[in-house]
Amino acid sequence: MQKMTNISSVQEYLLSEKRQGKKIGFVPTMGFLHEGHLTLAEAARKENDIVVMSIFVNPLQFGPNEDFESYPRNPERDAALAASAGVDILFFPEADEMYSGSSIKMHVTERTDVLCGSRRTGHFDGVVTVVSKLFNIIGPDNAYFGLKDAQQVAVIEGLVHDLNFPVNIVRVPTVREEDGLAKSSRNVYLSETERAEAPVLYSSLKDAESLIEEGKSIPQTIISHIQNRINSETSGTVDYIEIYSFPELEDIHSLQGEFIIALAVKFQKARLIDNIIIKKSQEEKQNV
Amino acid sequence: MQKMTNISSVQEYLLSEKRQGKKIGFVPTMGFLHEGHLTLAEAARKENDIVVMSIFVNPLQFGPNEDFESYPRNPERDAALAASAGVDILFFPEADEMYSGSSIKMHVTERTDVLCGSRRTGHFDGVVTVVSKLFNIIGPDNAYFGLKDAQQVAVIEGLVHDLNFPVNIVRVPTVREEDGLAKSSRNVYLSETERAEAPVLYSSLKDAESLIEEGKSIPQTIISHIQNRINSETSGTVDYIEIYSFPELEDIHSLQGEFIIALAVKFQKARLIDNIIIKKSQEEKQNV
Repeated sequence: MQKMTNISSVQEYLLSEKRQGKKIGFVPTMGFLHEGHLTLAEAARKENDIVVMSIFVNPLQFGPNEDFESYPRNPERDAALAASAGVDILFFPEADEMYSGSSIKMHVTERTDVLCGSRRTGHFDGVVTVVSKLFNIIGPDNAYFGLKDAQQVAVIEGLVHDLNFPVNIVRVPTVREEDGLAKSSRNVYLSETERAEAPVLYSSLKDAESLIEEGKSIPQTIISHIQNRINSETSGTVDYIEIYSFPELEDIHSLQGEFIIALAVKFQKARLIDNIIIKKSQEEKQNV
Repeated sequence: MQKMTNISSVQEYLLSEKRQGKKIGFVPTMGFLHEGHLTLAEAARKENDIVVMSIFVNPLQFGPNEDFESYPRNPERDAALAASAGVDILFFPEADEMYSGSSIKMHVTERTDVLCGSRRTGHFDGVVTVVSKLFNIIGPDNAYFGLKDAQQVAVIEGLVHDLNFPVNIVRVPTVREEDGLAKSSRNVYLSETERAEAPVLYSSLKDAESLIEEGKSIPQTIISHIQNRINSETSGTVDYIEIYSFPELEDIHSLQGEFIIALAVKFQKARLIDNIIIKKSQEEKQNV
């Protein structure tokens, strides 16, 4: 594995590899790697000739009251993990070089005023700016994003469509513990009791999927079922349970086509998010 | 020469050519081609394996009171001229396909509040949006822009730098009549007398260059000289004569480094623009 920090070096190197027909897979991260990131790298390893991972804590996507300064960093451990997951090039750009000019501002006007985005003004503007830059630097054929942050996937797919990036976005399923809890670095903040309750989040999403398969098609019915299970079986407080078309993230009144059921639940010291994306053919019979 | 309209067809075709090591030169235009455009295509022909020209009257870069609807179009004539200039692929995208989604807004915050940009709010936002899309669709190694519209060149160079597009911007000198007048489709609107006076614009810019070579280094001295010549030798009215660093387009107090002298002059039915870019080593002796 090769470590690179200079933007034009990595850009020129990968451009020349691309000219020789090499396929490039790209995994953008903010570092402090966990199993989710490694799953993305392993998926990239299977489908590309060269796997590039970037590690960049992007100041532009943090709000003024957010944790940019204290965001955890561990470059040595990250490098070892990335190498073990089959990464060929680990790209560590520096903020000074990444943002040495800023005459262009990018703003996302759709898919951002719901779910977690509604609580983080400007966050996705920073995400699309850094992703556009990284796509131009790396020139990936395939870029890998985890569905744990499904809204990010939706925004990036909008970016790729709107600006015609020649990049295939690969949606990688959320990595879970054996009991179904979505893996997250925040799970360590759960108490023992909370940890035992937490699988109810995913279990209630799977319930919802079954109910929809059985023919339930009204969003509020599904939301109420999930809400009841979380309220009665956990000590957490529901922050939101929302259903939208995916990846447009628009309101839907009937559960048709592709849509997402997403939730956020607050425990004492941790706020957990999870979601499930369901694709339902419009032709299937509905028994409401 | 091949004509293409479908975005993904042209994108896939050029991507596969690029993977085989072909160099792509790109000339973006709004059509109604004149000698300036053909000069760009000829420059591209010399330096690339494949020359792509796009013809797209971009609605996003016209203001509400501007001439989008009445902008001249002549696709058959354009195709014949493009073929004669050595274009391999003429790309005619359709507005419906180009702007089928619009969740991303791009905004240029620098280099736009001077010269013509200060009179066309939002114009360059539309320019950078369409140029980003076209760069992603075509994937050029080299893209050709005429220095007649030097502010556009400056903004595009800012875009390429800020978002790290892997594209080399080639600045192509303004094409001129034998008497020095910059070629423009608007020159036909000049009366016979005005046409005889109009070469004074470029001649006064060349004067300025000589004065600077002789050691004059204060912008106002140069501006006054140009203003006096235009006022005394033409019937036109000066709209602006401005000097900025190039491509940053920032105020300068001493004529050092790379800078632009740009002017706009109104005649009865035509408003003409012209400019000259001068590079002056900081080490040269100055005799003010």
